[in-house]
Amino acid sequence: MSAPPWVTFLSDYGLEDEFVGVCHGVIARRCGQARVIDITHAIPRHNVRAGAWALCGALAYMPRGVHLAIVDPEVGTQEVGGRRAVALATADEEQRLVGPDNGLLMAAAELLGGVVEAVDIGRSEERLEPVSATFHGRDIFAPVAAALAAGRPLAALGEPLAVDELHTLSLTSATVRDGALRAHVRHVDRFGNLTLDATHAQLGQLGLRLGQRVAVHGAGATHSARYARTFAEVPAGALLLYEDSRRLAALAVNRGSAAQTLGLERDGELRLRAE
Amino acid sequence: MSAPPWVTFLSDYGLEDEFVGVCHGVIARRCGQARVIDITHAIPRHNVRAGAWALCGALAYMPRGVHLAIVDPEVGTQEVGGRRAVALATADEEQRLVGPDNGLLMAAAELLGGVVEAVDIGRSEERLEPVSATFHGRDIFAPVAAALAAGRPLAALGEPLAVDELHTLSLTSATVRDGALRAHVRHVDRFGNLTLDATHAQLGQLGLRLGQRVAVHGAGATHSARYARTFAEVPAGALLLYEDSRRLAALAVNRGSAAQTLGLERDGELRLRAE
Amino acid sequence: MSAPPWVTFLSDYGLEDEFVGVCHGVIARRCGQARVIDITHAIPRHNVRAGAWALCGALAYMPRGVHLAIVDPEVGTQEVGGRRAVALATADEEQRLVGPDNGLLMAAAELLGGVVEAVDIGRSEERLEPVSATFHGRDIFAPVAAALAAGRPLAALGEPLAVDELHTLSLTSATVRDGALRAHVRHVDRFGNLTLDATHAQLGQLGLRLGQRVAVHGAGATHSARYARTFAEVPAGALLLYEDSRRLAALAVNRGSAAQTLGLERDGELRLRAE
Repeated sequence: MSAPPWVTFLSDYGLEDEFVGVCHGVIARRCGQARVIDITHAIPRHNVRAGAWALCGALAYMPRGVHLAIVDPEVGTQEVGGRRAVALATADEEQRLVGPDNGLLMAAAELLGGVVEAVDIGRSEERLEPVSATFHGRDIFAPVAAALAAGRPLAALGEPLAVDELHTLSLTSATVRDGALRAHVRHVDRFGNLTLDATHAQLGQLGLRLGQRVAVHGAGATHSARYARTFAEVPAGALLLYEDSRRLAALAVNRGSAAQTLGLERDGELRLRAE
Repeated sequence: MSAPPWVTFLSDYGLEDEFVGVCHGVIARRCGQARVIDITHAIPRHNVRAGAWALCGALAYMPRGVHLAIVDPEVGTQEVGGRRAVALATADEEQRLVGPDNGLLMAAAELLGGVVEAVDIGRSEERLEPVSATFHGRDIFAPVAAALAAGRPLAALGEPLAVDELHTLSLTSATVRDGALRAHVRHVDRFGNLTLDATHAQLGQLGLRLGQRVAVHGAGATHSARYARTFAEVPAGALLLYEDSRRLAALAVNRGSAAQTLGLERDGELRLRAE
Repeated sequence: MSAPPWVTFLSDYGLEDEFVGVCHGVIARRCGQARVIDITHAIPRHNVRAGAWALCGALAYMPRGVHLAIVDPEVGTQEVGGRRAVALATADEEQRLVGPDNGLLMAAAELLGGVVEAVDIGRSEERLEPVSATFHGRDIFAPVAAALAAGRPLAALGEPLAVDELHTLSLTSATVRDGALRAHVRHVDRFGNLTLDATHAQLGQLGLRLGQRVAVHGAGATHSARYARTFAEVPAGALLLYEDSRRLAALAVNRGSAAQTLGLERDGELRLRAE
């Protein structure tokens, strides 16, 4: 690992309680040189997909190190194949992932070349005893992340797991047929901007060019959007289709909320067609 | 002090304004090597008890160092015995506490072996002149915490105070009589989970065993809870009694809010009895 | 630059998404030694004046270094004189400012002795390719700030700009006439405290002395305030006029909200007169 060792940290803990601060403390005590970057702690509670989305978007911009991510649908059970606690090594040797085995880490692991080694850390010797039933971030995940940052090998931190036993998330995908793009909302940000599961190339298959108008059909209604590069190219209140900062198709309302205008949420389906 | 010197920081300042950032800046200017862990800044405004609760819960997991905590019922008066600014040394020699003398620091100080030395820092030579009437975090508390992190002795930072003059908080306590546990809500977290002032041992006195049902009487109504180890042991929407991450009795609703279900807030009283 | 290099960071990104964390990651990758202080990320979206206010108030308490500030009225256009991305050197040689050229940085630059050199960083060789249309914090501002923290000279980071081409904000100012102070609300904090554009000296021109009562006329109604040093000098619910932590005249309601009581927002006008 490079010096200083970096730990990135994402969770659904929020900042209202001391949970995030406590995990920082646990890391500082176990590995004082580690420096921690908080990606976000505002993942909606229990929303593993939203956590996986934020982790993936952030990872390409993070320093190499240990990536700690905690979003748990139901804390406190440890059944095999369920909400097992895991640490993962990826093909990129300087990168490690720590978190629950519920799919949260897997898309991020793909970005890092895929998982090459996995351990179940539920009974890791690094965990803080007595392990509570409800705060595994403090008692299991943070201590193991800190031990990895301090240079301990993955294999020393838990029981080996077969990589193909790890849980993955199934994701929607967009399709083009008969000149129409059928897509889904993959993410809604706090401004109500909607990122779709459609790529730049798929927009190209619609024959769309910048400046052209697009019919957007979703939630039982049809709206007209402009295919634009920036928000400022449409008037305040108007809908635009654009390529967002991840290079995915996205819908926004300049100075407004596309989620409200279109009545769509995460996973909502819509169809786009050139007007 | 160990290297790097650690400063932990808890307040009711929130993150909406620049107050927390400014205190970080003041610490960085006075002691550039110090590393700061934000425990939380979302303590409800003026709520000294909530601040003391969060500080106590976090402290056992923090690195040794200076613990800066600021929650003030009424900022801007400096009467003796009132909202005096203090710095404290504890029996654990590598730990220091800095904050208002209103009880906020005292339960934490007990965890660190009790206060062995105290100084009034209201006129400390470290304070930033002119001291404002309303932002003592910036002008008094943060500079003194940073000076301690930089290695200055406590006695150099203020006027000596008798330890028994320091203010303490009175806390409720749970009692068992006639097979019933009379307890109080000591903390409500952002999920509506209720931590009680009752210990594991007191639950034992009720003769409770895991899996058993418990009658919970509070706010004029009686609910039935299951004594469980994890949330996942009860259906979504169901009430459970469990031992929380501090090893205190707690009530929760799986994927819901016990505070809402029971109609209870901090300091609310309730009675528990095996069904 | 002093070691470690400091970067302060202020934005309207909020903490709900991963935007702030991503900028931290970009800085860590480009300049691993840099230490980042988050001033605040809760500037109201698009509110350049609120951002300039917070930056100015914080800057005097920050360590010397690079000050990164991002509040953009309309992201995504790059016209000259519009929302150009700039980096500035100030008369204080160890200070740098990075952000949009919309006035956000200029009051802060004045505090640091004024701008002595400016570059347009829109096509800086440090920027991350491909530059997105919507996340210039990640792709332009953060990498340039990190390069400055790493010691690169300003001139190497962009195209030279004439200092007098930079955009500034026009600010209200208070005036005293016929024994009345006409002032404006320059800032409303999260507690509803109102900071005015009036100085201590201007209050002196009204002949006010501590303890005296003041008629406050605004939003079509007149209220009576007490000129006090601390909140605790008036009863809960009562209005006070005081000098705030920036030494500007301010109005507050002890344990309440002056913004609500007076019905005033940012830029609201009011008149004060001794009773």
